[in-house]
Amino acid sequence: MSALHPDLAQMSVDKVLAALGHPIRLAVVRTLAAHGETYCGAIDTGASPSTMTTHWRILRESGVTSQRLDGRRHYMSLRRDDLDALCPGLLDAVLAAPTGDLSR
Amino acid sequence: MSALHPDLAQMSVDKVLAALGHPIRLAVVRTLAAHGETYCGAIDTGASPSTMTTHWRILRESGVTSQRLDGRRHYMSLRRDDLDALCPGLLDAVLAAPTGDLSR
Repeated sequence: MSALHPDLAQMSVDKVLAALGHPIRLAVVRTLAAHGETYCGAIDTGASPSTMTTHWRILRESGVTSQRLDGRRHYMSLRRDDLDALCPGLLDAVLAAPTGDLSR
Repeated sequence: MSALHPDLAQMSVDKVLAALGHPIRLAVVRTLAAHGETYCGAIDTGASPSTMTTHWRILRESGVTSQRLDGRRHYMSLRRDDLDALCPGLLDAVLAAPTGDLSR
């Protein structure tokens, strides 16, 4: 893929787990799973833009999400096929688990 | 359980994912899954004792492992039933994935 996105061969289970292991990033992943590709500004987590920039980077660099620039807007989507190839059943298990409380 | 171990109701999926999201902790979890309860000193990850103390704490406080003191030895085991209750399929998916390279 691009320099911004690791190939499947460059992805690792531990980095994916670490990327998923935060309540805001988990909420983002649930949103992308439910709605498909989404303009990042449309995902309101209550976090500041700079905090969200870090979360987007961690999700992207682990291979959990891909990012596409259209005009001045970044669109995010879940790399479902690559996640399923890397660790079959992981994403389904995480998405099926009860939603965490973001206010914790 | 004890002050050292969260109850199932106190566990959260994001904290479990974060605990699993490190190559050393993931290697420990694979070892415990393969061998059952294990004396922590018998698990050689190459990390220093103080680093391992931190990893054991993160695993225990997230609910991934339980810790039992017998004499002066700490024995660790995987809280498989609680993990399966919290997020069915997660542990199985993680254990079935290819082993990461600890030397990364």
